[in-house]
Amino acid sequence: MQLIKGGVTAPKGFMAAHAAAGIKYAGRDDMAMIVSRKPCIAAGTFTRNVVKAAPVLFDKEIVEKSDEVHTVVVNAGIANACTGEEGFSYCRQTAEVAERELGFPSDSTLVASTGVIGMQLPMDRVKAGVVKLAGALDDSNEASDAAAAAIMTTDTRPKQVAVGVMMSDGSEIRIGAMAKGSGMIHPDMCTMLCFITTDCNIDKQLMSEALRSVVCDTFNMISVDGDTSTNDTCLLLSNGEAGNKRIVSEDKDFAAFTEGLFYVARKMAMMMAGDGEGATALFEVKAVHCRDRQEAKTFAKSVITSNLTKAAIFGHDANWGRILCALGYSGASFDPSRVDISVESENGRIELVKDGVATDYSEELASRVLSAEKVTCICDMKQGIEEATAWGCDLTYDYVKINADYRS
Amino acid sequence: MQLIKGGVTAPKGFMAAHAAAGIKYAGRDDMAMIVSRKPCIAAGTFTRNVVKAAPVLFDKEIVEKSDEVHTVVVNAGIANACTGEEGFSYCRQTAEVAERELGFPSDSTLVASTGVIGMQLPMDRVKAGVVKLAGALDDSNEASDAAAAAIMTTDTRPKQVAVGVMMSDGSEIRIGAMAKGSGMIHPDMCTMLCFITTDCNIDKQLMSEALRSVVCDTFNMISVDGDTSTNDTCLLLSNGEAGNKRIVSEDKDFAAFTEGLFYVARKMAMMMAGDGEGATALFEVKAVHCRDRQEAKTFAKSVITSNLTKAAIFGHDANWGRILCALGYSGASFDPSRVDISVESENGRIELVKDGVATDYSEELASRVLSAEKVTCICDMKQGIEEATAWGCDLTYDYVKINADYRS
Repeated sequence: MQLIKGGVTAPKGFMAAHAAAGIKYAGRDDMAMIVSRKPCIAAGTFTRNVVKAAPVLFDKEIVEKSDEVHTVVVNAGIANACTGEEGFSYCRQTAEVAERELGFPSDSTLVASTGVIGMQLPMDRVKAGVVKLAGALDDSNEASDAAAAAIMTTDTRPKQVAVGVMMSDGSEIRIGAMAKGSGMIHPDMCTMLCFITTDCNIDKQLMSEALRSVVCDTFNMISVDGDTSTNDTCLLLSNGEAGNKRIVSEDKDFAAFTEGLFYVARKMAMMMAGDGEGATALFEVKAVHCRDRQEAKTFAKSVITSNLTKAAIFGHDANWGRILCALGYSGASFDPSRVDISVESENGRIELVKDGVATDYSEELASRVLSAEKVTCICDMKQGIEEATAWGCDLTYDYVKINADYRS
Repeated sequence: MQLIKGGVTAPKGFMAAHAAAGIKYAGRDDMAMIVSRKPCIAAGTFTRNVVKAAPVLFDKEIVEKSDEVHTVVVNAGIANACTGEEGFSYCRQTAEVAERELGFPSDSTLVASTGVIGMQLPMDRVKAGVVKLAGALDDSNEASDAAAAAIMTTDTRPKQVAVGVMMSDGSEIRIGAMAKGSGMIHPDMCTMLCFITTDCNIDKQLMSEALRSVVCDTFNMISVDGDTSTNDTCLLLSNGEAGNKRIVSEDKDFAAFTEGLFYVARKMAMMMAGDGEGATALFEVKAVHCRDRQEAKTFAKSVITSNLTKAAIFGHDANWGRILCALGYSGASFDPSRVDISVESENGRIELVKDGVATDYSEELASRVLSAEKVTCICDMKQGIEEATAWGCDLTYDYVKINADYRS
């Protein structure tokens, strides 16, 4: 596997476009489109929040029933969530305009929205935006750069990645992705919005399996604020244009494809966590030597979602008591008198707790280790061989500021 | 039932004391003591965090094995959590000094600590503090006022309450309480520290049952930050000095006692939530018309623990989408298209959502309703007859500030 430039347009046959439709933000792009001329098979994972946004309900149907997906239309600013029948009809109308403009059949378009909950989309502007997008499609890296920027809300930077993976027949398949997500991030099945494209020739059922398995260990292991969104969506489109021998079983090629997908999804997940609203640091927590994977995930997620721990990370304070406390209320059992806790970053590594009690560590060195853009905490539970990693961010003044007046 | 002045010294035969022992804070009281000359039966509920502080382990033993409890010794500043065998031995030493000074038998003293996790108590100062406390006992309201202030950490105000309850034989029993709690508040079985005294003559088993049932609907329904402490302790001592006919069955008197206890516990719980670290408002959430009590609690707790909702309350922003979203990820099921959401305060009441979609409400009025010291949100789920209430607070800059440098 190798990292390559670009994002969703890196795989063969995919184009992207961006447009300023004036949905909510002024003076910036707020719509994006991904298109493959060749029809794609699609897989998706969606929020498990009982309150599902209209595009989530719409896309679930399309992913299930259609094997000829061409287009994804995305808007930022308004989430089209809690908008009733009217909101759902807007998904259909958006798709219809795209299909008419691009000459594709019905049920070939997926839609996604992010932004404020409860407002209706201004459909005149959305439709005009779709027309603009359809006329601006391009398969360059610049096109994917601009599309990744167009779907941001409180994100401070666009998020994309692409990899190439060698298949056993000598062909190279590619996987590209773009994502947005910064607040209301505590995904359950998938995170805010992520769009993954691939030219890999693969069976639809196998592709869905690969996506599901990857999402569990990547997007479902990040949290910014513990709030699971109504719009969480991860879509994976494959047009098969790489020309590789079709993957029809869980063979070596399937493993290579899944590994590439995992890399892409983890990268997107980490970029979202590190760009959490108001965040100054990406906070990575590894729970190691656990009895099983689920237990390891439970420990890691409990620590990254602890407000007190997150505030301590912001303050560069090696407050290991809060970490041990968060392990303690996670719901999984362990012997507190055996736990070791270390933190590490580009500034060094330091063991804070050995067998449940504080080591004689230097607070100054600990504070230096915590003053990095990425901080890793390792919790050694000493009760098994499994491990898991979760990603979050610190809790800052700016998180409060952003969310005390997000709508205004 | 009637509200009376004072706190833990309001029931007959209870005294309190306060002292400045210099454990961590300078220039303020940091130790308190509650004493009954007549031996008490005791009940307690404690944290369910796997990581339990030494005083929690110590008190659990005493509450179970002793029917002659006289004394509670409390210190603020250091939590005596994650302190191993050494920390546990300090509980025993503290109790021994109290018992020697006051002339009470072994196993008659409970201890409680709150503050930083992981530091050992300076035992010379603690012991000197106990000697001071033993010489300063007093049954006045001033003594309980000062004791309630001495146990504060980041609390901004002392918390106490007392009630009188008439028994069927014409006697009045009293229940008094003091509590502290502001951060790391997400109790599981009980909250930070709460001490309840009563002179009611009651069977120990029945008293324990009353406490357990009351704690479930009061302390276990508050959250400041989702972090369940290692030290959560609620102790209830009864010396029987009211002289009422002993309560030995679940009769009318038991119901009256439990009602009084519920009032006291709920008052303490609400005071803790409203004085959450950095809080500017007490946030009360009622989930009504639910299928059962547990479901109602799940909904109410999900909303009060949502960081996004809490930040919106701080911003006086009627961001009902976040409330509906938090109901949606609570884990309990419902039909989003039937839910009504209202907010109310001393400034008025306003319906924000009717049948799952926004009403045509005035943002200005909504903002006024949210600009009060106590804000109530009513979520009408329309699927049953049960309800539950939870209490929390807003998420503010000051919460982050307090917790980014708590130890320094």
